[in-house]
Order: sequence, then C-alpha cells, then structure tokens
Amino acid sequence: MRSAADGAPSHVWVPGLAAAGTGSVITIAGDEAHYLRRVVRVRAGERVTATDGAGTLADLEVADAADVVRAEVRQWRTVARPRTLELWCGAPEGDRADWLVEKLGELGVAALRPVNARRGAWERAAQRRERWQRLAIAALRQSRSAHRLEILPPIGLAEALAARDRTIPAFVADPAGPPFGSGAGATLAVLVAAVGPSGGFSDDELKALEDNGFRRTGLGGSRLRTETAALAVAALALAGGA
Amino acid sequence: MRSAADGAPSHVWVPGLAAAGTGSVITIAGDEAHYLRRVVRVRAGERVTATDGAGTLADLEVADAADVVRAEVRQWRTVARPRTLELWCGAPEGDRADWLVEKLGELGVAALRPVNARRGAWERAAQRRERWQRLAIAALRQSRSAHRLEILPPIGLAEALAARDRTIPAFVADPAGPPFGSGAGATLAVLVAAVGPSGGFSDDELKALEDNGFRRTGLGGSRLRTETAALAVAALALAGGA
Repeated sequence: MRSAADGAPSHVWVPGLAAAGTGSVITIAGDEAHYLRRVVRVRAGERVTATDGAGTLADLEVADAADVVRAEVRQWRTVARPRTLELWCGAPEGDRADWLVEKLGELGVAALRPVNARRGAWERAAQRRERWQRLAIAALRQSRSAHRLEILPPIGLAEALAARDRTIPAFVADPAGPPFGSGAGATLAVLVAAVGPSGGFSDDELKALEDNGFRRTGLGGSRLRTETAALAVAALALAGGA
Repeated sequence: MRSAADGAPSHVWVPGLAAAGTGSVITIAGDEAHYLRRVVRVRAGERVTATDGAGTLADLEVADAADVVRAEVRQWRTVARPRTLELWCGAPEGDRADWLVEKLGELGVAALRPVNARRGAWERAAQRRERWQRLAIAALRQSRSAHRLEILPPIGLAEALAARDRTIPAFVADPAGPPFGSGAGATLAVLVAAVGPSGGFSDDELKALEDNGFRRTGLGGSRLRTETAALAVAALALAGGA
C-alpha cells in the first residue's frame, strides 16, 4: 500500500482545508494522520494531495510526519462536481450496505439517503453511520476525488417525498420501466434516483414516487438486488455520460 | 427467503433442461434441490421456473419434493441474450472477486475472463473457480435470468489477445479515456471490455490492447478500483441501453 502503481501522491481528507491559504501550514489529525504515517509512511519533504470533500483540492508538502503530521499548502483550487446524484436507497440485505457505501463513494455519488419503506427499514443505520462515513472517506482517498459522499440520516419515504425539490429530475428503478439511457438520465447535471429495499417498493410507494415526478427506469430489465440496482444507477448517471 | 415479495415463483438452474420436452418429468438434484426443499420449501403442485443458463426458460410443476425433487415441464421457450459482454478482468484486491462474480452475474454479463497482468495475477483462481460458479448460479436465481455467467479459466493478457476475435468491438477502462457513452458502447450487441488489476495495466499492456483494437473508455474520469470499474462497465453496457 506504499504508493499507487501509477506513482500518484497519496490523497487525504482534511476538513476545513478551504480556510487555509497558500503557504500556510496545516495539521493533519486522526485517521488521516494514521493513514499517512502508518499506511503510506509519508516522510518530510514528500508531496501529498488533500481535499475537504467539498470541492477544495490542494497540493501539500509534508513538513513533519513524526508525531503529528504537519504540511504546507503549496497550491489549491476548487473543483465542481461534474454531476450531482442524490441516491435514495431502501435497505439492502445483511451487511451489503458497507460495500454499497464504498462503491457509491468511488463512483462519485453526492449523497446517500437511506429511505425506510414498507418492505424494508434501515434497522442499524444510526449505529453504522459513523462506519459508513469512514468508508466514504476511504473511497475519497481511493478515487482521489475532491468530493465526499454525504451519508444522510434515514427517513421514511413519505417524509423524503414531502421534502423533495420537485424541480430536480428524478428516477425510480423498476424492472418494467424503459431503459435509463432512453430517458436522457445519463446527461443530467443534477438528479435524484430511488431504489427500493430488498423486497422492492410496494405498488402504493411506486405510485407515490410517480406522483412526485419520479420516472420509472428499467436498468436493462434485469431483476437486481437493491445494492446492485443502486450501483447500476450510479454508474449510468456518473460513469457513462459525455 | 420463502418467496419474493413480488410473488414470483422460485427460479432454479437445471443443466440439460433443453433436452426435456413439454410434459416430461425431470429430477432436480444437488444444490438446486437443496435450495427448493430447504430454502424456499417448495411443495408438490407448486410452480417454479427453471433455466439451463444457456437461454432455455421453463415453467415447471413440482411433482414430488420429499426426498428428491421431481417436476413436470409445463412449457418452455428459448430466450436470446439482449447483449453479450465478455469481461476481461485483472485481479482485484483480497476477496473482492467473490462479490464481483455475484454482481456481474446479476447484471447479465456473459463471461468473466480473469486476465493475469504484470501488476496483478489471479493467485487463487483455480481453487476458487468452483465457488465462483456457485455464486454465478445464485445470481442467476436472484435475477431470474435464462443465462448464466460463464467463469473462464485465467490466462495471461498476451494469450488472451492472441486468441481474440478482432471483429468484436472492444474497450479498455482507462481514466484518461473518453466516456463510454460517447463511443456508442452502450448500444453494441456483442462487446469485450477489459479492466486492469488493482495496480492498473502497464503502459505496454495498454498499448498492446490498443494495438488489438481496444478503445480506451474513461468511465466518467473517476479512478476506480478494479471491481468497481468492472461493475461500472457492466452496468453501462447492459443496464443503460435502449
């Protein structure tokens, strides 16, 4: 794990980075300091990149990596998300949410909104949110992104629909729907996509989603597990477009 | 796990199914019999669907589920794959191949070809192939597909390139490449896609792939883990098209 085969510098998450100007020296603490000292074994004088997960991207020069990690900001810039996807997701089976979070983070999903539905509730979401946030930061490191997946607290579908901004185009995964590509979903700058829990959305829930402007999308007609459908939507919305 | 929330009948893999005509009684053995008797607890008189994983799809009526499972073929038909994707995949880290196989199976990939590359070899592929074949069958049950993911034996990249049918369009995942959608990859009926190992393909390997007709595709520009890139390609090729 010393460094990537492509020779790229290590990439870490530094909250508050945007407030540090060029030439200032920042202290990197917690998990990120552990990662730099113990995993990639960074040394004074080496370059790393950093982000606050909110669009700031900085080149740092490590000043000290002995006890705390201190680094000088050499330059920084702000990067816009190419696309903003908020994913509403019903509860998958078992521990599948862990890797779902990792993969959504790598693919560049903006926010994961766990949604409680009739056929599936996020039973342990409160206890696991901290773990998911760590996984989202690990995915940010892996993908060298300037943007972190936001993990929202779980809410009921009706509540999510009541709070929704109806000007944002929205899709709901449904094997009977037309393909995502045919609805031009792959070219939208901002979108919401909803995926049912492992038992699927009920007919009432699908109707409520449609009444609130969600268009059904078939994802190729396959019958996919919750986490697979979520990943397919994320790939289609974020990895394929022009 | 008794039955799906959508009330669809259980779906099992029955090799040799194509040879059984309408009205004939077949015996279901092994893991699939265990699945029907112990997991979904099927009873005589109930309907299930079956496939040979090679395009045959049959409706069965269970005749006996006591010791062995016997069922009558009520009707059957042949289903063509909407698209045929062969995925060449470098070795991912750790145990990530297990869920890669599950997800590629669900999404409807035709074949997974493990490819040994300079920066990553499939160390335990021989021992794990049987496990992956079971995971591919489980994915077929889950997705109610008529087609099973074929797990090919691992070979070196040079050997794979030498054996390749160059009339089939091919893509290689590379963060610097143009988006998959812009190359019309999402509308091809038959295609090959290659994804590097966790350390990435070397420059020489990328050149050899390009010399053999593989077009670079960027998957949105994100730097993805091997298994995430493989899944993104599969979703783009199979779940998004018109």
